[in-house]
Amino acid sequence: MIVYFRLMRMKDDEKKEALFEATVKLVNEIGFVSSSVSRIAKEAKVSPATIYVYFENKEDLIVSTYIDIKLKMSKAILENFDPTLPIRDILRNVWFIMFDYISNNLKYHKFVEQFSSSPYGTLVEKKVVEQYFDPLINVLQRGVEQKIIKKVNFDILSAFMWYPITILANPRLCENFELNEENIETAFTLAWNAIKL
Amino acid sequence: MIVYFRLMRMKDDEKKEALFEATVKLVNEIGFVSSSVSRIAKEAKVSPATIYVYFENKEDLIVSTYIDIKLKMSKAILENFDPTLPIRDILRNVWFIMFDYISNNLKYHKFVEQFSSSPYGTLVEKKVVEQYFDPLINVLQRGVEQKIIKKVNFDILSAFMWYPITILANPRLCENFELNEENIETAFTLAWNAIKL
Repeated sequence: MIVYFRLMRMKDDEKKEALFEATVKLVNEIGFVSSSVSRIAKEAKVSPATIYVYFENKEDLIVSTYIDIKLKMSKAILENFDPTLPIRDILRNVWFIMFDYISNNLKYHKFVEQFSSSPYGTLVEKKVVEQYFDPLINVLQRGVEQKIIKKVNFDILSAFMWYPITILANPRLCENFELNEENIETAFTLAWNAIKL
Repeated sequence: MIVYFRLMRMKDDEKKEALFEATVKLVNEIGFVSSSVSRIAKEAKVSPATIYVYFENKEDLIVSTYIDIKLKMSKAILENFDPTLPIRDILRNVWFIMFDYISNNLKYHKFVEQFSSSPYGTLVEKKVVEQYFDPLINVLQRGVEQKIIKKVNFDILSAFMWYPITILANPRLCENFELNEENIETAFTLAWNAIKL
């Protein structure tokens, strides 16, 4: 009975996963408006009715896809997070992991970008997603308290500490930036110089 | 005869302008795939045949819209450009103008972002657009030669000098960043700290 239950659970997860992947693929290819529930179902190889088992409507599916991406990203980035290291080392480690993660998952990043600048972006409580990245926010906060990091608006810190990665890790935007350790290290120096006191 | 010619020219420019605006509006609302030539024509209030007077096809219209946005942006940003000022002052002036321009023209920025990450992005020779911003590139180059700015890949310099503006000037992405002189100045300090030697 337990085995059976586990098999069912896995199938459920697989279907949800297939729906998330189909949503990302279709939205990236044809945009939010054209990505209808029936097209997403077809792409995910499930019946349209199945979508409504897991999600209330198209809106719920799209928002859930976004939240799922952010959750997976935070897990990948924070997998070996060690808050006992010096602050610069913590940020440097995360910097390298984020470069790796984003350059290998550009499709998710593209979806996130489109989502954030679409009307759907207003449907997500920012705090829900931000809490996944709490350990990172705490490091920056600790850096500010210890007078290692500039005491400025957190949006400013993020714009220099994390956003440059999303630009540099995207070969379509930065065709002259070769993704190697030396270049990623150089870029980190600039990020650190920007935020350090 | 001259007057008549001028009137026709103006009408031509107005039609082209209407087509550019309609393209931006539709692509931002429904994406590239759904933005057909006939829908764009309808939005611009011209006949579909008119589009083909000015543009070879949908691809040409979309690429031309992108180039037009970049050209107008460079003109706005470089309007009072004074290359005789100290390098930090030049960059600071441009920084403030760009904040103003982008925050008042988010629709163009959104189109540019979508364009760059779409297949259309590969159709534009990067150099064509980059040359509009030559004075800015020259300032950075001069800064590197004078050992004021770090000698690193130009994609890295841009990722810290210009991209943070596109994040911070967008209230959807940075709802805690109030667009006032003090905050924009603070953000410039971080950009300058990042790139200066």
